[in-house]
Amino acid sequence: MTVLILTSEQDVTADMVVAQLHEQGVPLVRFDPGDLPGDGALSAEYVRGEFRGYLSVGGRVVSMDGLRSIWIRRPSEPAAHAAEPSAWLSAESGQALYGMLDCTTARWMNAPSAAAKARNKPWQLHLAHRSGFPVPATIITTYPQIARQFAEQYRQVVVKVISGKPPSDPSMALPTTLVPPDADFAGVAAGPTLLQRYIAKHADIRLTSVGDEWFAARKASEPGQVDGRYGDTGHQWEPVEAPLRITRAVATYKKLAGLAYGAFDFAEDSEGTWWFLECNQSGQFGFVELQTEQPIAEAVASWLRFTAA
Amino acid sequence: MTVLILTSEQDVTADMVVAQLHEQGVPLVRFDPGDLPGDGALSAEYVRGEFRGYLSVGGRVVSMDGLRSIWIRRPSEPAAHAAEPSAWLSAESGQALYGMLDCTTARWMNAPSAAAKARNKPWQLHLAHRSGFPVPATIITTYPQIARQFAEQYRQVVVKVISGKPPSDPSMALPTTLVPPDADFAGVAAGPTLLQRYIAKHADIRLTSVGDEWFAARKASEPGQVDGRYGDTGHQWEPVEAPLRITRAVATYKKLAGLAYGAFDFAEDSEGTWWFLECNQSGQFGFVELQTEQPIAEAVASWLRFTAA
Repeated sequence: MTVLILTSEQDVTADMVVAQLHEQGVPLVRFDPGDLPGDGALSAEYVRGEFRGYLSVGGRVVSMDGLRSIWIRRPSEPAAHAAEPSAWLSAESGQALYGMLDCTTARWMNAPSAAAKARNKPWQLHLAHRSGFPVPATIITTYPQIARQFAEQYRQVVVKVISGKPPSDPSMALPTTLVPPDADFAGVAAGPTLLQRYIAKHADIRLTSVGDEWFAARKASEPGQVDGRYGDTGHQWEPVEAPLRITRAVATYKKLAGLAYGAFDFAEDSEGTWWFLECNQSGQFGFVELQTEQPIAEAVASWLRFTAA
Repeated sequence: MTVLILTSEQDVTADMVVAQLHEQGVPLVRFDPGDLPGDGALSAEYVRGEFRGYLSVGGRVVSMDGLRSIWIRRPSEPAAHAAEPSAWLSAESGQALYGMLDCTTARWMNAPSAAAKARNKPWQLHLAHRSGFPVPATIITTYPQIARQFAEQYRQVVVKVISGKPPSDPSMALPTTLVPPDADFAGVAAGPTLLQRYIAKHADIRLTSVGDEWFAARKASEPGQVDGRYGDTGHQWEPVEAPLRITRAVATYKKLAGLAYGAFDFAEDSEGTWWFLECNQSGQFGFVELQTEQPIAEAVASWLRFTAA
């Protein structure tokens, strides 16, 4: 039984898991969907009620019957490296590949349909409430008047992107940014805007959840720091105990969302409360493991290796 | 309690359901996501564990609390009609809108995550097998050799697109096409290709399934006709009884796929067998209803109106 890892060539986080699987003696195939068609080839047959599928990677053939688990790490767009790439070839190749994989009994980290829903920020906030996390007050609105009232009510608010980074070349990140209450909110009418009460934080928390296991890490903040994801703050990630309320909420959230893996971000305030910021269902963990020495890659490898009896 | 219909302005099928809902006295809002931001506005609050959301369409405000059901018919891309449209504005607007709708207790025809998975052709074939439909032998392959063997084995095969129409302007349809066994299959290596045993059909069958109801219609074929979707064949759609095996399989398929609505296409052969071709989770039914007078719009309206006690 083989583990299939879908990711691009340059992926240190995947390298760590591959090393663990090799150590545990688990057969694996690493494949980038961008290499289909090309270095990758596939064939699926639907004949007389039977499904048979094969994926070939660099000449090595994997039967869909023999797939134990599938880890979607950071795959390229299907057909991205084709001789004549096009949006349609990507669509055809993606449906052929992921459709064939969907016909297997392999377990997914994470299933594509669960992953797609879990990326949705408004739904994350709702799910976080339902799961029992403390969540900073948030609005998403196209009404300048409502945005202004929210900013006046909470005094310190931040603005965030909803769907992720805007596409641009070179790629541009929009860090979470403080908005003064007397800002001009007229532009809110031009597109839905997410405002959130600012949590004056003492630390960033990253909790990486793998199956039933979790690994919490803490990085102290500079006073007044808003977005700790960019630049060097001079602080390191260190292992930390997670409160029971949080680990219970993590389990509930993942169950409701149908996720096997999730990277949860929190802001720790002066009273030690962990405020839910987001759950990234494909968040990388390499940087946390390197600083904390928490055995996250080993936990991922063990989850992928596990086969139900 | 209000019914929300997401569709573009020109949509005769939606018009028919709107007329039915008006007749049944059910409050409804018709909205095109392309009009957000603009004619449409929204606001969602996530404060102290509570979610409150509002959608405003042409000045009329609908509370998310009061949403009974959501019908996704044929919506434009979010923000498609914005003053300055962009892929990023569409992504932000789409997450804001569909994310807010996902936080409601409204029932969906069809839920977006189920709809996304149900569009996948390879998975449809697998699901059709599992549900008990007769399914023509099919392969999806990047191997010219396997394509050639399949064509030789079945003598008469057709080639189909996997993911749908290739994007082009003006839009271009690729009809299902017969492939002679001595064709040159070298091009199969350039992209996954779907080949299917050709069913010499006596009729096209369209079965429209709405909740627990279904409406089957039959249109006779000319001998040798391959794809009946284009052009005038001189035959009309007529109501037909569906075999028990088929209606059972439809119920199983929809349950496994999590669909409230599905338009199933079959090819009827000389022995009267209905061969599963595909299930279009958003297939329109207006043309069937106009020819058969089957009350499909009424069934959709009734499903949307229904509120669990």
